[in-house]
Amino acid sequence: MSEYTVAVLGATGLVGQRLIDILEERNFPVKTLKPLASKRSVGSTVKFHGQDVPVEEALPEAFEGVDIVLASAGGAISEKLAPEAVKRGAVVIDNTSHFRLHSDVPLVVAGVNDDALKNHQGIIANPNCSTAQLMQGLKDRHEAAGLTRVIVSTYQSVSGAGKEAMDELKDCTSHALSQPDCAPSRNDIFTRPIGFNLIPHIDSFVTEGDEEGYTKEETKLINETKKILALPDLPVTATAVRVPVMVGHSEAVTVEFAKPLSPKEASAVLASTPDVVVSQELTDYPTPADAAGKDPVYVGRIRKDTSNPETGLNLWVVADNLRIGAALNAVRIAEALVKENLIQRQPATA
Amino acid sequence: MSEYTVAVLGATGLVGQRLIDILEERNFPVKTLKPLASKRSVGSTVKFHGQDVPVEEALPEAFEGVDIVLASAGGAISEKLAPEAVKRGAVVIDNTSHFRLHSDVPLVVAGVNDDALKNHQGIIANPNCSTAQLMQGLKDRHEAAGLTRVIVSTYQSVSGAGKEAMDELKDCTSHALSQPDCAPSRNDIFTRPIGFNLIPHIDSFVTEGDEEGYTKEETKLINETKKILALPDLPVTATAVRVPVMVGHSEAVTVEFAKPLSPKEASAVLASTPDVVVSQELTDYPTPADAAGKDPVYVGRIRKDTSNPETGLNLWVVADNLRIGAALNAVRIAEALVKENLIQRQPATA
Repeated sequence: MSEYTVAVLGATGLVGQRLIDILEERNFPVKTLKPLASKRSVGSTVKFHGQDVPVEEALPEAFEGVDIVLASAGGAISEKLAPEAVKRGAVVIDNTSHFRLHSDVPLVVAGVNDDALKNHQGIIANPNCSTAQLMQGLKDRHEAAGLTRVIVSTYQSVSGAGKEAMDELKDCTSHALSQPDCAPSRNDIFTRPIGFNLIPHIDSFVTEGDEEGYTKEETKLINETKKILALPDLPVTATAVRVPVMVGHSEAVTVEFAKPLSPKEASAVLASTPDVVVSQELTDYPTPADAAGKDPVYVGRIRKDTSNPETGLNLWVVADNLRIGAALNAVRIAEALVKENLIQRQPATA
Repeated sequence: MSEYTVAVLGATGLVGQRLIDILEERNFPVKTLKPLASKRSVGSTVKFHGQDVPVEEALPEAFEGVDIVLASAGGAISEKLAPEAVKRGAVVIDNTSHFRLHSDVPLVVAGVNDDALKNHQGIIANPNCSTAQLMQGLKDRHEAAGLTRVIVSTYQSVSGAGKEAMDELKDCTSHALSQPDCAPSRNDIFTRPIGFNLIPHIDSFVTEGDEEGYTKEETKLINETKKILALPDLPVTATAVRVPVMVGHSEAVTVEFAKPLSPKEASAVLASTPDVVVSQELTDYPTPADAAGKDPVYVGRIRKDTSNPETGLNLWVVADNLRIGAALNAVRIAEALVKENLIQRQPATA
């Protein structure tokens, strides 16, 4: 098997570390790993297959000789560095939102719309974590019964906002536990105390147009869903809420179809979808604690929508947002590129 | 003003204590307070207007001479004791689910459908906490534009399951904080660890019929909404989720109307509703920490439903479940009964 030089951009972040773990776990054919991060991380190392690999500064020159870039260092950094990597012949799989809705950039959930990879121009976008887990089952159900509407309420863990957000949840919760009558005070990453609280505000607000009043987290979920399913006119709406959970995003989803699809039929379709685990018993519903650290998307509570019993279903979808929503999907995209021979290996630099 | 003998059934519970606090705060015309609880609480006292009032055992005879019973000791106890109280001439305002869907029992949210009180037969039911807060704004919007569908995802605090549930959240969270790699183990009230987790399962599961797969918490929300709004055919669906929050229930709500209602119009309708506070700025959304300990229902994030922009709205509703959802509504019902002269005062026992 060919072996590749793989750069991980944002290697010291929460998703960057998961990317390196998953490359190792899945035995991705890495010849050389190049962990890249900001200047202040230079001097640190990351563990990969038992080796300590030094972190290098994320400069354009660092992409010389790189075949695959897994980018997870923020939109502004991807905007600047992804074209530099592509210019040097690498394929960039980008976890940030920057390129997702660009018409010449495929937006891919591996196993859902791999076909979109075929015409990539060097950059492939990985959807938002909350979109990725939603997509795993929707595509097959669309093929089974014709999706006509999607309504999602999310319950998103703080790890979606990075390591510091997890620390803030810990600190804020400890504070609230020791001073139960006092509102938790630490308030750095989140706009409100997050300990024993929840916040219906992720990313910034849209202030005009039809999406006025939505957060960008919600518009990402809406627009990325349409793009991945190649259904630009699909009616989709979303409410995105941060909850005091460390890892694992959950979604309460209401879907409508062009023709009837019973809970039993939907379960059967889902159960045949790779990487999806469907609850077999009513009480066997997934929770974030069940999904954290695991690869599948878990779906439970599949039932008729009582407000639309003929053609509607409600369901509950849970996944590890750091894995399925980010790192795992990026590595799976890389695997699909390898399989379809869509990576042009680079000559090593002198 | 007439003064009443008021019994609080379940006086030592979380809602019972709030009931007594609120009777005091609102200066309800109490001549005599009778705190009633199970035998094991006899010997304890509750504070009321600076006095220590002894708890009495909740026996049928305890209702002799009582004008108003505020009942919050569980469905089985209300089933047994409410008729005993009515037989002795009292009006019972019941916080449990037992009588809510009985056709001869009005189900009332004060300020929403007080008219239903007029024909009471001695028992008046207080809706589920998650229903009560939803109703505050829906009725007026129904009158403004004709409700045609309601879809709700809840984010319900543990205090809805009582004091022990709050202790379990504290213990489970402390455990998880000190042993971050280990799943929290305490697991008494909830079916799964609740610390840094969430559980899409409140009350038991319905196992047959069109509501198969729903929890009773969800079917309560669905059926109580129809009854309170007097819209038996209104399409309603719900997903009810327990979140690691101490006090304050939140709801992501999608509503559809027969005719267009803009976010601005809906805000204006809501802002004119007593006891509802509407966010004036995008970033001014309510969280459970903001609502806990307060009386209003808070509504924010009012925006067009992007999946139904002509006649749909999304909104975010938060309230203190112990107050608006239970104790405060019960006391407000009692106030409405007093105002409308719907209580027949009892002769004092000898």
